[in-house]
Amino acid sequence: MQSVELYDTTLRDGAQREGISFSVVDKLNITRKLDELGVHFIEGGWPGSSPKDDEFFKRAAKLKLVNAKLVAFGSTRRPGVKAEDDKTLRALADSGAGVVMLVGKSSDLQVTQVLETTLEENLAMVSDSIAYLKSKGITVFLDAEHYFDGYKSNPEYALKVLQTAAAAGAECLVLCDTNGGALPPEVEEAVKAAKKATDVAIGIHAHNDSELAVANTIAAVNAGAAQVQGTINGYGERCGNANLCSIIPILKLKMGIDCIGDEQLTRLTEAASYVSEAANLSPNPSLPYVGASAFSHKAGLHVSGMSKWVDSYQHIDPALVGNKSHMLISELSGRANIVYRAREIGVPLPPKGKEAQQLLERVKELESRGFQYENAEASFDLLVHRAREDYKAPFGLVDLMVVVEKRRRMPTLRAGKEVLSEAMVKVSVDGEIMHTVSEGNGPVNALDRALRKSLLPFYPQISAVTLIDYKVRILDSKSTESRVRVLIESSDGKKQWRTVGSSANIIEASWLALADSLEYWLLKHRADK
Amino acid sequence: MQSVELYDTTLRDGAQREGISFSVVDKLNITRKLDELGVHFIEGGWPGSSPKDDEFFKRAAKLKLVNAKLVAFGSTRRPGVKAEDDKTLRALADSGAGVVMLVGKSSDLQVTQVLETTLEENLAMVSDSIAYLKSKGITVFLDAEHYFDGYKSNPEYALKVLQTAAAAGAECLVLCDTNGGALPPEVEEAVKAAKKATDVAIGIHAHNDSELAVANTIAAVNAGAAQVQGTINGYGERCGNANLCSIIPILKLKMGIDCIGDEQLTRLTEAASYVSEAANLSPNPSLPYVGASAFSHKAGLHVSGMSKWVDSYQHIDPALVGNKSHMLISELSGRANIVYRAREIGVPLPPKGKEAQQLLERVKELESRGFQYENAEASFDLLVHRAREDYKAPFGLVDLMVVVEKRRRMPTLRAGKEVLSEAMVKVSVDGEIMHTVSEGNGPVNALDRALRKSLLPFYPQISAVTLIDYKVRILDSKSTESRVRVLIESSDGKKQWRTVGSSANIIEASWLALADSLEYWLLKHRADK
Repeated sequence: MQSVELYDTTLRDGAQREGISFSVVDKLNITRKLDELGVHFIEGGWPGSSPKDDEFFKRAAKLKLVNAKLVAFGSTRRPGVKAEDDKTLRALADSGAGVVMLVGKSSDLQVTQVLETTLEENLAMVSDSIAYLKSKGITVFLDAEHYFDGYKSNPEYALKVLQTAAAAGAECLVLCDTNGGALPPEVEEAVKAAKKATDVAIGIHAHNDSELAVANTIAAVNAGAAQVQGTINGYGERCGNANLCSIIPILKLKMGIDCIGDEQLTRLTEAASYVSEAANLSPNPSLPYVGASAFSHKAGLHVSGMSKWVDSYQHIDPALVGNKSHMLISELSGRANIVYRAREIGVPLPPKGKEAQQLLERVKELESRGFQYENAEASFDLLVHRAREDYKAPFGLVDLMVVVEKRRRMPTLRAGKEVLSEAMVKVSVDGEIMHTVSEGNGPVNALDRALRKSLLPFYPQISAVTLIDYKVRILDSKSTESRVRVLIESSDGKKQWRTVGSSANIIEASWLALADSLEYWLLKHRADK
Repeated sequence: MQSVELYDTTLRDGAQREGISFSVVDKLNITRKLDELGVHFIEGGWPGSSPKDDEFFKRAAKLKLVNAKLVAFGSTRRPGVKAEDDKTLRALADSGAGVVMLVGKSSDLQVTQVLETTLEENLAMVSDSIAYLKSKGITVFLDAEHYFDGYKSNPEYALKVLQTAAAAGAECLVLCDTNGGALPPEVEEAVKAAKKATDVAIGIHAHNDSELAVANTIAAVNAGAAQVQGTINGYGERCGNANLCSIIPILKLKMGIDCIGDEQLTRLTEAASYVSEAANLSPNPSLPYVGASAFSHKAGLHVSGMSKWVDSYQHIDPALVGNKSHMLISELSGRANIVYRAREIGVPLPPKGKEAQQLLERVKELESRGFQYENAEASFDLLVHRAREDYKAPFGLVDLMVVVEKRRRMPTLRAGKEVLSEAMVKVSVDGEIMHTVSEGNGPVNALDRALRKSLLPFYPQISAVTLIDYKVRILDSKSTESRVRVLIESSDGKKQWRTVGSSANIIEASWLALADSLEYWLLKHRADK
C-alpha cells in the first residue's frame, strides 16, 4: 500500500494568514495537539528570524513528542557567502531541531529576477547548504520554491535543482506551488517528471489561490508523492495552504492510505477547533469534515431522505472524524451527557429524573445567552453543584463597581499608568460582609485583585491560584452592544481548570468567569479537607 | 475551442447555506448582477414551494436580462401520479421560466430506499415529466441527482436514467455529486461514461464536502462537460457548492475557455461582495480571486520579491478579476510598504527620506505595544496623516470616565438591565469643549454613544457611521493584566474601514479604535468636500 507522511506547517506558513499571531505558548500547545493527532512532522518556525521562534525551539526541545518530529524552516545560504558563515544556516544548525526544511529556488526566473544571481550559483547554494546541515547530523528536506512555475518555464533547470539537492543528500524534495496557480493535471505531470528525474522521495506543498490546493495535493499523491504538507483549517497567506483537515480524511477514508490511526482521526474536529481558538479566528462552519455545518441539513428534501436512510445525504459517517450530524445534536445528546458528567464529579443524578432534565434546560438557556460549556468544564461542574439543595457557595456577590478614568490633567498615580482602573466589591463570606477596593492594570485586573482581597482573610491558600489564560470572544460581532464571552483558564500550580462568563457587558462577563474560577477552586479545596 | 456555459444556482442551492435568507428584492437584485456578470443561466428557485419563490418568478419575468436565461427548479412527478396531474410539474409549467431544471434520481439505492419506488417507475417519472414540460414549449435540463454515487453502485442504471432523459428530449444532462463525496478521477471517469452513453450535452453540479468541488468541476470540463453549475462565493448547504468565483477565472485565464468577456471578468470581485452583502454574511477574506486577502502579502521574503518583480508571488494580475494587491503593513514589512501605502492615500513620501523611516519606527514601536496595522488600514492611514505638520484632527480627547455598577439592591433603571454602564467624555471640537454622558449596553457601547453625542452637533452626517464588527484579542493571554487589542470594522453604508486600539485596559483599547474610526471617516468626509 502507498504510504504518505503528513507534514504540518500551521505554525510557520499557517501563521502568515492575515490576523494570526501565535504566542510561544500557543505554538507549544498546538505542537502537542498535532503530535496527538499523529502528524509525522511539525514545522515550528524559522530560527533566527525572531526572538519568538528562537524561544519556541528552545522550549519545544523539551516536549516529549510521541509521533512527530520537529522541523525548523530556513533558506539556503545567500549568494556569494560560505555556508559556514551564513547566519541563517547557523541558526538552523543551532535550533536543536533534528530536521530542517530548506527553501531553495527551482524557477529560473525567480533566481535571476528575485535572487539576482546566476543559475549556477543557485545550484551551489542548494548543494552547499544541504551539505553543511548534513555535516551537523541534521536530516534535510528541500522546499523547492516555485517548482511548478519553474517546471513550466524551464523544466530542465527545475529538475536540475532537484537532482542537485538529491546528490547533496536531501531526503525529501518538496515541490511547492508557491503562488497557488497550478491546475491538477499540471501538478500530476510535473510530479511524474520529478519522480523520473530522481530516486529521492517527493513531497507536495500546495497553496489555495485557485481553490485547488487539496486537489493538487491529491493529484500529487496519485502521481507518487510520499509527503504531504499543509495546515490545520487551511490557514495560510492569501487564500491559505492545503488543508490537512480535508486531506487526511480523503487519504484515509477515500483512498485507503493509512496516514494516521482510526482513533487519531476521530480527534480531527477537536484539533481543528483547538487551532482556530488559539488563532482567535471564528471557526468556519462550512469547512469540510470538521466544520460545524459540514454535516448539517437544511433542505427539506434532504432531511426527509435522511429520515429514511441516514447516509442518503452524507458522504461519510461524521463520527469517523469526530464531527456530528447537525440534526442529531438537539435530540440525542443532552441528558445522557449531563448524567455522565455529574457522576464523574460525584453528584449522582437519576438518569431519567427531573434533576437531569432541569439541568439540561438550564444549560440550553445559558448557552442561548452566550455561555459555552464545552471549553469550561469547571463552570459546568458548578452548575451541577448549585442545582443541589444542600449546596453552600463559599462566597456570594453583593455589589460591585468599576471605574475607569483617563484625564488630561490627572496626576499620574503609578508610573507608566495613563489610565486609572479601580474596582470595589462587596461579597459575603461565611455570613460576613467584606467590602474591598483595589486598583488594577485594567478594569478586570482591578476586579480580580479586589475579590482576592475579600477572600484572602478566609482562604489564605487562594493566593496560589493564578490566571494562565484569558480569552474574549465577541458573539455576533455586530456592534459594541454585542454579547461577549470570556473564557478563563486558571492554575494552582498543580491542576488547571476553565471557566466561562457571558454578558453584553465585558466587565460582568469577566466577573462571572473570575468568580467561577475561585469558587471552583474553593469547592475542590473544601472537599479535599 | 471548447465552450462552457455557466449556470448559477446561488438563489436556490446557495440559499440552503445556514444563515442565508434572501428576500424577493435581494433575489431580483442578484439576478441583475449575475446577468451583468455574463452567466448563461440563473436558477431562481422552486415554483410552488413557497409564496416567495412564486413572487420572484412573477417579478423576474419583467426583468430585461441581456445575457442570462431564467431557470425554474423542480422535481419529476411523484410515483404513480400522471404528469399532468402533478402539482410540482404544473407549477413549473406556469412559472413563466423558459427553462426548467428537473431533478430526477440516478442512483438505484436512492430510488428504492428514499423514493421507495421501483427502478422502472423512476425511469417513467423522468420520461413523462420531461415530455410534459416539453409539450408546454419549455427547454428541459435533467439534474441527475446522486449520479456519481449511482454510477459507483449501479453504472448501468445511472446511464439508463441519462439515456431515458435524452430520449424524452432533455437538452442537458447535469451530473450531480449531491453528497460531495467524489474524487476528481472518479468524476472524470463517470463523465466520460456519460458522454459515451448519449449525444446530449453534459453538465456538472458539484458540492464541496471534500474541498474538491472546484477540482471536480474542472475534471468534468476536461472530460467534456459543457455546462458548469455553481454559486457565487461557493455558498450552499453543508460545505457549499462549487464556487463560480474560482471556476470562472480558472476557465478563462488558465484554460482559455472564453465563458464570459474580459470586461465582465473584472466585475467578479464586485459581484462576490454584492452577494455576500445581500446574504448578510461577512465576506471571507481568504476566498481565491475575489477575497480581500487573495492578493495580500505579509512575509518579508514575498514583499521584497514583489518589489523586484511584481508577479513573483502572485499567480495572476488581480486587476483581471477586479481585485487588488495589498502589502500588509506589519512588523515583518519595511519602508517600501509604507511609502507604497502613503502614495496610495495621497501622501507622497520620499522613498529614502527620514519621514518614511520615522513612520516605520513609529509602526514598530506601536506594534510592540500590541497594535497591529495589517487589519487596520484606517488606523495606519491616520498615522501617516498625523505625521504631517499641517494635520488638524477633527476632535481631541480631554477626559473620559466609565462606571460599571452592579448592586443587589439597585433599582433596575432600564428593563432587563442588571448592570449599569455609564460613560462620560470630554472632547474638544473646533476649539469648543463638549462634555457628554451616556448609558450603554456595556461600557464600550456607553463610550461609543457618549462620543457620538459630542460630535453630532458639529458633524450630523456621522450618524451614518455604524460599527459592523468588534473583535477583542488578549495578547499573551497570561492574566487579567495582559494587553488587549481591539479591532473595529465600521461602515457608512457605502464603504468599510478598520481601526485598531491596544492597551492593558480594554476600555482604553476600545476607545482608541472607536475614536480612530470616527476620525478616519471625518477626515475622508472633509477631504471629499
